[in-house]
Amino acid sequence: MSGRFISLEGGEGVGKSTQATRLAEALRDRGVDAIVTREPGGSEGAEAIRDLLMQGSVTRWSAHTEALLFAAARADHVEKHIRPAVEAGEWVICDRFIDSTRAYQGAQGIDDSAILALHAFGSKGLLPDRTFLLEVPQAEGAERATARDGAGADRFAAREGSFHEAVGAAFDRIADAEPDRVHRIDATGSPQQVTARLIDALSDLLP
Amino acid sequence: MSGRFISLEGGEGVGKSTQATRLAEALRDRGVDAIVTREPGGSEGAEAIRDLLMQGSVTRWSAHTEALLFAAARADHVEKHIRPAVEAGEWVICDRFIDSTRAYQGAQGIDDSAILALHAFGSKGLLPDRTFLLEVPQAEGAERATARDGAGADRFAAREGSFHEAVGAAFDRIADAEPDRVHRIDATGSPQQVTARLIDALSDLLP
Ligand SMILES: Nc1ncnc2c1ncn2[C@@H]1O[C@H](COP(=O)(O)OP(=O)(O)OP(=O)(O)O)[C@@H](O)[C@H]1O
Ligand SMILES: Nc1ncnc2c1ncn2[C@@H]1O[C@H](COP(=O)(O)OP(=O)(O)OP(=O)(O)O)[C@@H](O)[C@H]1O
Ligand SMILES: [Mg+2]
Ligand SMILES: [Mg+2]
Repeated sequence: MSGRFISLEGGEGVGKSTQATRLAEALRDRGVDAIVTREPGGSEGAEAIRDLLMQGSVTRWSAHTEALLFAAARADHVEKHIRPAVEAGEWVICDRFIDSTRAYQGAQGIDDSAILALHAFGSKGLLPDRTFLLEVPQAEGAERATARDGAGADRFAAREGSFHEAVGAAFDRIADAEPDRVHRIDATGSPQQVTARLIDALSDLLP
Repeated sequence: MSGRFISLEGGEGVGKSTQATRLAEALRDRGVDAIVTREPGGSEGAEAIRDLLMQGSVTRWSAHTEALLFAAARADHVEKHIRPAVEAGEWVICDRFIDSTRAYQGAQGIDDSAILALHAFGSKGLLPDRTFLLEVPQAEGAERATARDGAGADRFAAREGSFHEAVGAAFDRIADAEPDRVHRIDATGSPQQVTARLIDALSDLLP
């Protein structure tokens, strides 16, 4: 039997990485074979590209170059890791996927249609079976991320507030446009509570 | 006054790198401000991407991932190095450019129109003012490259003969389709003779 491909999306500090691990555990408790992966990265080649993307100054790459590098990393990740795992029957929980590129590169002025064209070229347009958009009030997400990172923010977290507002608006548009795939999840409250909401929102896919 | 953008193309060992250096010297002898650059690479970011492309096994990257990485490297090279230099009045001699991607990735089954779409996205479709396709009989090119490299060939040179024939055929198609931009140059004979042919084929652009 083929597995499932689930992505977790949302702004900085909303709890994607925390929930990716917890959700995989909760699925395994239910007898589902689940693995966690992340973007950018997730395969040997894509992690090497991730290093190029995450290091250096905010202006190291233009928005267009960045979009091409994300598409290359995702193509490698999909081909070498995600597709083979799903075909082998595993549930793949991915910490960020195409919607993060649409939101972050879109907030830098790249057309959504161009990003989807790159995704069609590199990854044959693979979309998750379900995407969870984790939502907390923006201040709470920033607080969680700052409590975690201190001053050591990466190239993306270092941007100003208006950029993160544009990212949030882009995620909103995607969720509005694709309600069958993208489910909004209230990510306030304890990690346990959020995981319970995710499992609940997967009940129709669970065996 | 704006400068010029010239690319040198052709299969392995035909003398592109040799002629790039010699052509720039010959232009400087004529009072033209000329610089040499190369692909993949040519800017700090693009050289980092080049390292990813050139290292590892022949199958490290799929043809689609490779095309995206080439487009990203070229976008950075064009934005950071080529455009600013040409706008400052320099002649930029580039050792391989978009036609190498069209020939090599095309020989791996990627549509020419898809490669040109990536180039339009990343580099606003920049094409050289003139491209020289250096031609020697295939055996002579292979001999020159082997005499230079010995056994230490890179990921591209390591491919078999039929691959290089497909690359040559792709270069031929480009030259046939774009005769105004792409000029065929007989690259047999001494390096001096080839440089003389190049300067001759640039006479209409020279001050
Ligand atoms: N439900 C929660 N309540 C309080 N704190 C939380 C909750 N979930 C996660 N955290 C904490 O908030 C911080 C950010 O969480 P996490 O790293 O999972 O977010 P993220 O969405 O992956 O962030 P980024 O986008 O930066 O990768 C961490 O320190 C984490 O322990
Ligand atoms: N006209 C020539 N006659 C004989 N040998 C030559 C000539 N031009 C270059 N060579 C030699 O042939 C070898 C290949 O030349 P060069 O490196 O310039 O080719 P290239 O087209 O840049 O190859 P590659 O595609 O591998 O980068 C070098 O050793 C060079 O010195
Ligand atoms: Mg995270
Ligand atoms: Mg060379």
